[in-house]
Amino acid sequence: MRAVIFDGRLRFIERFPEPEIPSNWALIRVLKAGICKTDIEITKGYKNFKGVLGHEFVGVVERCHNPDWVQKRVVGEINVGCGECRQCVNGLERHCPRRRVLGIVGLNGCMADYCVLPLSNLHMVPASTTDHRAVLVEPLSAACEILEQIELTGSEQAVVLGDGRLGILCAWVFSTVLSDVTLVGHHPEKLKMAGWRTLKTTQLTANRAHSADIVVEATGSGKGLVDAVSLCRPRGKIVLKSTIASKSKINLLSIVVNEKSIIGSRCGRFKAGLRILEAFPDMPLERLISADYPIEQALEAFKVAIQPDTLKIVLDMTGEK
Amino acid sequence: MRAVIFDGRLRFIERFPEPEIPSNWALIRVLKAGICKTDIEITKGYKNFKGVLGHEFVGVVERCHNPDWVQKRVVGEINVGCGECRQCVNGLERHCPRRRVLGIVGLNGCMADYCVLPLSNLHMVPASTTDHRAVLVEPLSAACEILEQIELTGSEQAVVLGDGRLGILCAWVFSTVLSDVTLVGHHPEKLKMAGWRTLKTTQLTANRAHSADIVVEATGSGKGLVDAVSLCRPRGKIVLKSTIASKSKINLLSIVVNEKSIIGSRCGRFKAGLRILEAFPDMPLERLISADYPIEQALEAFKVAIQPDTLKIVLDMTGEK
Repeated sequence: MRAVIFDGRLRFIERFPEPEIPSNWALIRVLKAGICKTDIEITKGYKNFKGVLGHEFVGVVERCHNPDWVQKRVVGEINVGCGECRQCVNGLERHCPRRRVLGIVGLNGCMADYCVLPLSNLHMVPASTTDHRAVLVEPLSAACEILEQIELTGSEQAVVLGDGRLGILCAWVFSTVLSDVTLVGHHPEKLKMAGWRTLKTTQLTANRAHSADIVVEATGSGKGLVDAVSLCRPRGKIVLKSTIASKSKINLLSIVVNEKSIIGSRCGRFKAGLRILEAFPDMPLERLISADYPIEQALEAFKVAIQPDTLKIVLDMTGEK
Repeated sequence: MRAVIFDGRLRFIERFPEPEIPSNWALIRVLKAGICKTDIEITKGYKNFKGVLGHEFVGVVERCHNPDWVQKRVVGEINVGCGECRQCVNGLERHCPRRRVLGIVGLNGCMADYCVLPLSNLHMVPASTTDHRAVLVEPLSAACEILEQIELTGSEQAVVLGDGRLGILCAWVFSTVLSDVTLVGHHPEKLKMAGWRTLKTTQLTANRAHSADIVVEATGSGKGLVDAVSLCRPRGKIVLKSTIASKSKINLLSIVVNEKSIIGSRCGRFKAGLRILEAFPDMPLERLISADYPIEQALEAFKVAIQPDTLKIVLDMTGEK
């Protein structure tokens, strides 16, 4: 099968071996796969991962033991827990210390004609949902994770730093439950594009010090956390949304004296993302797709994906094999 | 009056002017005042404070407009808010951006024969409570603040890093509600002394990585936070309890990937501390007092207070003036 792999360098392979199917797992024919910042980090050495890249996809179940799932269009949770530890037992497979993660830890990913996942990781996609919307369920669910971690009353003032894909998704998810949400970024076109419902967008953070109830750091830079701490009000919450593979200097004194909280936030439950898709069919997710590339052009697609003006680049596997 | 001041250097003054009493404030004759790490930080330049030091005290109301309070033994909340801002209106005077803080920001402290505070900051001390226990209400309430910030089910495993006064108080407060609490420190005598109820004490953190539900950082060192992050389980909480006037390097990646939270925690409500005093008369607070010094010997007392084996040093104002 065709596959995009990283084995020290990024490569497109025409004839990669098809995956074996463990029992209770499904073989999925991938339709589309998104390129995520984590994929780009992996090509720089993150997690020391070697194998097929990719963890954002929409596909069709080709083979599995349960006939109800065969030929169904699906998206899939990316964490595969051990099923036995304290985290797994509590439904937190995504925090299992022995977990494998699709295209990130110990499990070949979805930038290929086929991938495999446990059937229990899969969710069917409603017919009304386009492939482009479905491929965004993974990052959309990651944005929804914030709502699982923070209890909101509805009157909170939220600021999202970073006008990349994840920042915009977080801002949109907040806008489904809060009326006072501001997205702060540096790219006028992205900010313009991000407008939805009551969401405000701006390039400035001046005159906002110590006022926001919740600040989401989605810039992916160490500076972003420093800004987030200063924008957050006393007793407010700072949500760290970007996996920055570096150490950052922060002034702990302000965190202690002003009793702020810093909350790490990562993957979310797909049910949350799918629920948002259903409840808000007008959420303009398609705007996040900058371009589709056939899988054969994956290397060029990755080059475009790292450009600052790019939003989501999608690899397409539906073309001729 | 006698007073311990900092005006660029730490000094004992025999004849410092007595404070004026604003309306609705009380003049308090101080009986005892504790030396806190923050006082020592101030003598190194923290908050750029100049004036009478001290914010931990027990005293007797000498003069005020309400006769019910006169001659009553009291302790006092240290934050004086503006009374008008969003924080003050929500009962969070301790987060008012314009607050004055006894002996720390814009308000002379309690290491003197007299200090003044708004009557609304004062709490009467039950006759059964000794002066030594009462002088510890301020740091005890700071430890109780954690219980206000974190909702506990009772089954959590908590680890407190740091066997100083605040670390021990946090461990004791946790031990009033949790059965699995461990205090980690480097001083065998302090650890032995800290034993109370089911509290476990140890010098080792080995084999504990990623297991604790809650980790309190009370070492006052940057290293303490690094240890706290690695001891904390995925989705667990790290409470930052020490006001470290420095920048610390932390690995944000572990916070994000494991969805840990870092929660800054500072002053607490005195009602919480007084309630604990009443409910747990066997909490061995007296053990935390290393020695009493007459106020005239304040400079020597400060020297002893910074020794690593010292717990709480108390200044006594009840001797001859």
